[in-house]
Amino acid sequence: MQKNGKVVLFSEAYKVLHGDDLLMREYLGGKGAGLAQMTNAGINVPPGLTINTKACVDFMNSENHLPERLMEEVFEKLSVIESIIGRRFGNASNPLLVSVRSGSRFSMPGMMDTILNLGLNDETLNGLIQLTSNERFALDSYRRFIQMFSDIVLGIPKENFENVLRKIKEKNKANSDIDLNVSMLKDVIENYKRIVKEKTGKDFIQDINVQLRLAVEAVFKSWNNPRAKYYRKLNRIPDDIGTAVNIQSMVFGNMDNDSATGVAFTRNPANGEPQIYGEYLICAQGEDVVSGIRTPLPIAQMKKDMPAVYRQFVDCAKKLESYYKDVQDIEFTVESGKLWVLQTRIAKRTAQAAVKIAVDFANTNILTKEEAISRIDPLLLNQFLLRSFDIKAKETAQNEGRLLTTGLNASPGAAIGKIVFDPDESEKLFQSGQKIILVRIETCPDDIHGIASAQGILTSRGGMTSHAAVVARGMGKPCVVGCEMLKIDLENELINCNGHNLKKGDLISIDGTTGQVFRGEIKTQEPKVSEELKILLKWADEIKRLGVRANADTPEDATRAIEFGACGIGLCRTEHMFMQQERLPWVQKMIMATTVNEREEALNKLKPFQKHDFKEIFRIMKNLPVTIRLLDPPLHEFLPKHDELVSEISERKAKKLDTDKEETLLRKVKQLRETNPMMGLRGCRLGISYPEINKMQVQAIFEAACELIKDGIDVNVEVMIPLIGEANELKVVKNHLEDTAKEVMRKYNLQVNYKFGTMIEVPRAALTAYDIAEHAEFFSFGTNDLTQMTYAYSRDDAESNFLSVYLTEKILNENPFEVLDIKGVGRLMKIAVEEGRKRKPSLKIGICGEHGGEPRSISYAEEINLDYVSCSPYRIPVARLSAAQARIKNKKLYTTA
Amino acid sequence: MQKNGKVVLFSEAYKVLHGDDLLMREYLGGKGAGLAQMTNAGINVPPGLTINTKACVDFMNSENHLPERLMEEVFEKLSVIESIIGRRFGNASNPLLVSVRSGSRFSMPGMMDTILNLGLNDETLNGLIQLTSNERFALDSYRRFIQMFSDIVLGIPKENFENVLRKIKEKNKANSDIDLNVSMLKDVIENYKRIVKEKTGKDFIQDINVQLRLAVEAVFKSWNNPRAKYYRKLNRIPDDIGTAVNIQSMVFGNMDNDSATGVAFTRNPANGEPQIYGEYLICAQGEDVVSGIRTPLPIAQMKKDMPAVYRQFVDCAKKLESYYKDVQDIEFTVESGKLWVLQTRIAKRTAQAAVKIAVDFANTNILTKEEAISRIDPLLLNQFLLRSFDIKAKETAQNEGRLLTTGLNASPGAAIGKIVFDPDESEKLFQSGQKIILVRIETCPDDIHGIASAQGILTSRGGMTSHAAVVARGMGKPCVVGCEMLKIDLENELINCNGHNLKKGDLISIDGTTGQVFRGEIKTQEPKVSEELKILLKWADEIKRLGVRANADTPEDATRAIEFGACGIGLCRTEHMFMQQERLPWVQKMIMATTVNEREEALNKLKPFQKHDFKEIFRIMKNLPVTIRLLDPPLHEFLPKHDELVSEISERKAKKLDTDKEETLLRKVKQLRETNPMMGLRGCRLGISYPEINKMQVQAIFEAACELIKDGIDVNVEVMIPLIGEANELKVVKNHLEDTAKEVMRKYNLQVNYKFGTMIEVPRAALTAYDIAEHAEFFSFGTNDLTQMTYAYSRDDAESNFLSVYLTEKILNENPFEVLDIKGVGRLMKIAVEEGRKRKPSLKIGICGEHGGEPRSISYAEEINLDYVSCSPYRIPVARLSAAQARIKNKKLYTTA
Repeated sequence: MQKNGKVVLFSEAYKVLHGDDLLMREYLGGKGAGLAQMTNAGINVPPGLTINTKACVDFMNSENHLPERLMEEVFEKLSVIESIIGRRFGNASNPLLVSVRSGSRFSMPGMMDTILNLGLNDETLNGLIQLTSNERFALDSYRRFIQMFSDIVLGIPKENFENVLRKIKEKNKANSDIDLNVSMLKDVIENYKRIVKEKTGKDFIQDINVQLRLAVEAVFKSWNNPRAKYYRKLNRIPDDIGTAVNIQSMVFGNMDNDSATGVAFTRNPANGEPQIYGEYLICAQGEDVVSGIRTPLPIAQMKKDMPAVYRQFVDCAKKLESYYKDVQDIEFTVESGKLWVLQTRIAKRTAQAAVKIAVDFANTNILTKEEAISRIDPLLLNQFLLRSFDIKAKETAQNEGRLLTTGLNASPGAAIGKIVFDPDESEKLFQSGQKIILVRIETCPDDIHGIASAQGILTSRGGMTSHAAVVARGMGKPCVVGCEMLKIDLENELINCNGHNLKKGDLISIDGTTGQVFRGEIKTQEPKVSEELKILLKWADEIKRLGVRANADTPEDATRAIEFGACGIGLCRTEHMFMQQERLPWVQKMIMATTVNEREEALNKLKPFQKHDFKEIFRIMKNLPVTIRLLDPPLHEFLPKHDELVSEISERKAKKLDTDKEETLLRKVKQLRETNPMMGLRGCRLGISYPEINKMQVQAIFEAACELIKDGIDVNVEVMIPLIGEANELKVVKNHLEDTAKEVMRKYNLQVNYKFGTMIEVPRAALTAYDIAEHAEFFSFGTNDLTQMTYAYSRDDAESNFLSVYLTEKILNENPFEVLDIKGVGRLMKIAVEEGRKRKPSLKIGICGEHGGEPRSISYAEEINLDYVSCSPYRIPVARLSAAQARIKNKKLYTTA
Repeated sequence: MQKNGKVVLFSEAYKVLHGDDLLMREYLGGKGAGLAQMTNAGINVPPGLTINTKACVDFMNSENHLPERLMEEVFEKLSVIESIIGRRFGNASNPLLVSVRSGSRFSMPGMMDTILNLGLNDETLNGLIQLTSNERFALDSYRRFIQMFSDIVLGIPKENFENVLRKIKEKNKANSDIDLNVSMLKDVIENYKRIVKEKTGKDFIQDINVQLRLAVEAVFKSWNNPRAKYYRKLNRIPDDIGTAVNIQSMVFGNMDNDSATGVAFTRNPANGEPQIYGEYLICAQGEDVVSGIRTPLPIAQMKKDMPAVYRQFVDCAKKLESYYKDVQDIEFTVESGKLWVLQTRIAKRTAQAAVKIAVDFANTNILTKEEAISRIDPLLLNQFLLRSFDIKAKETAQNEGRLLTTGLNASPGAAIGKIVFDPDESEKLFQSGQKIILVRIETCPDDIHGIASAQGILTSRGGMTSHAAVVARGMGKPCVVGCEMLKIDLENELINCNGHNLKKGDLISIDGTTGQVFRGEIKTQEPKVSEELKILLKWADEIKRLGVRANADTPEDATRAIEFGACGIGLCRTEHMFMQQERLPWVQKMIMATTVNEREEALNKLKPFQKHDFKEIFRIMKNLPVTIRLLDPPLHEFLPKHDELVSEISERKAKKLDTDKEETLLRKVKQLRETNPMMGLRGCRLGISYPEINKMQVQAIFEAACELIKDGIDVNVEVMIPLIGEANELKVVKNHLEDTAKEVMRKYNLQVNYKFGTMIEVPRAALTAYDIAEHAEFFSFGTNDLTQMTYAYSRDDAESNFLSVYLTEKILNENPFEVLDIKGVGRLMKIAVEEGRKRKPSLKIGICGEHGGEPRSISYAEEINLDYVSCSPYRIPVARLSAAQARIKNKKLYTTA
């Protein structure tokens, strides 16, 4: 761009704007910048020029007058293009045609106007016929140009032309545009010209210079058409930045048999294999590929049929990949043996391909390992770990009317099984080898064995963090929740959904990735963890600073955690251990106890179970840390539900059966009933009210540890006390329990490697972290509860009530139970980290809420310098990759700060 | 105290220690410091000396050896005392007797040893007989001295002496000690001496110098006796600071008929009248006053009988008051016409007296107004506003076995009435002029009319912030909650309490100040707001910076608010307006509506009611600000309770009655049921889900305002949007409602003086106050909810479950629902104030939670620079005084900082 020049060739733009991407986008718009970059990278791009955005701004500011000398500049540059391409604008035998397109700094797809084939008039039409030896093509190009130009520049509504076209097709019994032959097209053109004459009082413009000027003006004007203005308002794009105009020479893939057109990927987008992948048609224009009348050839064929072009192609693909450092999806045209790239963009790909490509690029030094790692969306990794439905099979099912409804995609993956409504039955059928989908209105902790034994879970109520959703995600089981269309009749074991009736035992397929629910069975495909993923995660581990632990409650979870690369257990919930069928009666006895003695007796029965569980888990984890959380939920969760008991009693009474036991239970249930159980008697408050419970658990933990140490197995125990909100709570509970621990160690005459610490899950805990740190050796953020309290959102209620409204109305940008709220919850965490470490620099700090497996939340964990995150075993690969990405981002910030 | 001296006379101590109170307490102990100060103030104190605490420390550090030369110093100083008092230690005809007492820096009442009448032996006994002309007194003094000295110094258990005394009394048929005559006492002394000889092998020590040395050593040793050590541990008093020893001359009120002894207040402690108030006995010793055989005379009598002494008395009272700047409670002895003050302390007094005294002191310049204000415990003011039970009548009732139980003193005051269990019946009986005590297991918003019509409320469940407690305090109605001994049988309308049975209609009396519940009626006394209180509060208003507003939901509340001196309404809850009987059906229709139209129809019926309420309140408040909170509670609170509906349906079914209506209601109740309603669909979430509700309320507010403005009445409206946790919520709701407000104002063609603002009651609101302030003109801290969320304590559950354990076990020092938690909740408030004002310096900020009427919380409100506090009308005097005190404290901090 010369001094004050407003027009620049693609081939000079990069230099003029110093290769500055932002500057290029500002002056040339996104499309212009891309064309300049490709040209600069040595890619064969049909030559052209860009009128910069400032010209548009001047145009708008001067009541739609083109800046002085603008068209002169355009024609000067155009002559350079003519000499490159070897054709001349307006030349009757060898005419140069151009496209005129808008292109602003921000992408506004389809909002502004584009004109193709400009440069055609009655004379150059003949030139085009000669050039392409294809009269039909030339005529069709001309009639399209007349329609487009008349619509956009002259303001003649295109319906006028469509009507003519329709009539001529009817007259000739032509079904589609391609059935129009030369004489029919001539007829169309005559009629089009007549319309222009009628509507404007003038002949269709034959002066191609005037055509070009009017086209430029039209593109500038289209910046302010109503749909563009609306789009900018919606997307907060400023109104005063204007658009650039790109004038590019047109090339012809239908010139001869050495010409072709097609689309290709520089690598295989399905599996990432390093070979060019795509299709082409010889002697054809772009739309021929799309229209599907001729079957395109695979690119591999080109190697044989057009070896010289294929060489250009390989060279071009290499250049593009190394320039953009990514696999490209390109549109190309071959004109008389010369390859022209019309457009290139980053190629969409599968998760498997993405990982393979990133690893291959790093291995061939196109990317650094850091760049390769940063390139992968961590959530894609889920696809490696899950079965999924075959996409075609799903489409077929949908066409067959088997899609019943779509709920919330609570836990991804595909599951097929027989409908079962009762968790006990689910467990029984599972043991007899059957595959089950557990269908419930909503689930509760009692249902855990039913969930564990099912292939997938389906509920009609509850949100993304309802019990079913959380537990299923924890187990890596497909789950669809909140299917409100599902009318579940538990009593008769029937479902009605949109008029479909299903009964117990019917086969259904649920897609936890999309939330779809199908009647019958759908074909699935196996998950596959590729070698490349293993390599990528190894690199991630080398880079990341954050530890990644697993939330694991059972030996099975622990084994899986190790397989997926966890460096410890960050949350082992002991309540799930209480839920198993042979234990629950003792748990209920413990709750129903009226004296400390009775309670201790029940606890003594439970201790061997807990001890056994702990031993198994410790044995698997060896010297890796295992954080065990003492009993947390309100006790009523271990008893039957109030309403169920009431109806059971009335049923038994009706049958004249004894109801003593049920009434005693009901009395206790009533006594334990709370208005807001989430903020009631739970967590450490239980342990302070009934110290025997915690004591039994700590005995079980330390006895298990001592017995393993005796067998020569290392153990690394972290005892976590939940729901602390005040330092004194922790002091009292911890002192009591450390005494218990020491007693056990004295008995065994052994020293266990142990720590006591607390969850930070109540806002006040974060606010008083300085005091709490005195009594804790570690903090673990319970971000689920911390989010609930910080927002005053009850998870059980919010998602089914107002949270969906909040998300659709953009009052909240994210569901804070999925993505950590940095402004509020995150701020509390930062306070806790800073002040906790001020009191105790050695304090170990992690997250054990569900956010521990969510990439953006992990990024924040890195930012505030946590020691680790902990998540469900299935999330560990995601977390490892996210942790590495966060580290890379954070190091960059640190370096540039 | 000379250089390194360890002994100091009372008369020189003040000067030696530069009148430095802390230093005096450190060296002389509390008692020694008091004696030194009184002496310095020119009060006749029996002369004496103090051995300082450092001597005790030396004693302990040198294995219980008295510091070198200590006793020499003591005897040197003692000779000065001898010359002042005109008697000599050990002199056979005119003996000086002394007391030897401990006295440490911190009060440890009764923990260490004291010896009286030291200086008596067989010889000085005769001198005492001559001196007092009272052989019996002298002998009795001697036998007491022998017993005390033998016990404390010689370690002979006092049971030995008690046994002898008992036997001699039995032999002589003497009922009590005072029946012992001279010859019997001689017998006792002989026997006492025999015991000493038997136990120690030596005669009772006759050398009075040795007596004194041993007594000093014994007091020092008593610093480390087990009970003193235990007491120090309990009260966190250091073990190494030691005690001082005070050796003081004894004076004799039984010397002659110009001698006397007694106790007196420098002003009347019942009503604060400025006259000496007390009793005395001529020719008597202290214990004679206590023993009650002789009837003491009122001090007024002294003016006639002993005018010279009375003049000394008046002079002394004046000196004491101006020295201590407070009313004193003194013990005195007159010896031969000379007044000696033995002890003085700040006089306990009634609230009425406290206020009168403070005002009188300020009016006579003994105190500044600031000091007078700071002197009064604000909570005392409650006594001015409440009827109370006559104390004697309560004692009688208790002796008659009429005290049924004691619950939590939820709302102070005395109430008598007939037991009623049903709120509707309560209202009916009230309308027929009866006095009712509403007895419920617990209350809910439906019961509001029953509470309003009752004299007082009694519940068997719930804590200090249960619904009953909060509503009763708001109404200034006596309330006792959480009486767990009360077994309430609602069905049969019976109560069983500790075996007592009561039924509907029985009279009971409840004392909300103490939590006591009595059967039958107890005499009450009227409250009285004195002129002095009015003056004091006027001064408080001149000094305070914080505004004091009222939480007022009705015109009656508003009137009361103005009477008590509120400068506005800080919280007008609109839900109470929905609860009235003629409105509730429309509220329920609104909730049951299935379409927006239906809902709007019901709302249109409600609007006139709301508008009428607002007009009445605005008319009373005129140009004072009125903050109206839009509908806040979850909608299910306006519907019948789930369990009640279920049983109603089954009852109706049994009677073959139609249950359609009930079942429709039940479906809605089930639909609205939430697991944790406190954190569910309420506050602004309601307004976002059902914008029509808020819209109706804002229309009612602005129509009311406009109609009053038309009548020439000023209005100052603040519309408050509850439960905001995210700036976007407020933005959406406020924009919508401000449009509604403008529409109304356009319709009336009037401009209302209004603001929109929000509650800060969710932790995230405080944490994101900077963003929220953009859309708010005021913040009002809802400290009740903020405390719930910050601690994760559900008010409805915590107090009846674990909070009482937490308080008794000192895990929490205060109930955070009563006294603001500064560390956690207060910190959030500080963040919100600082960051809210950073965004919008004009932001007006107040508290409208119950803490707004609590003195320590008000002090914090002053500290963080809030604009106002708002509390129930009955709390306003307390808040005005507290605000002034906080201002004074804060200004001091500011000045000395």
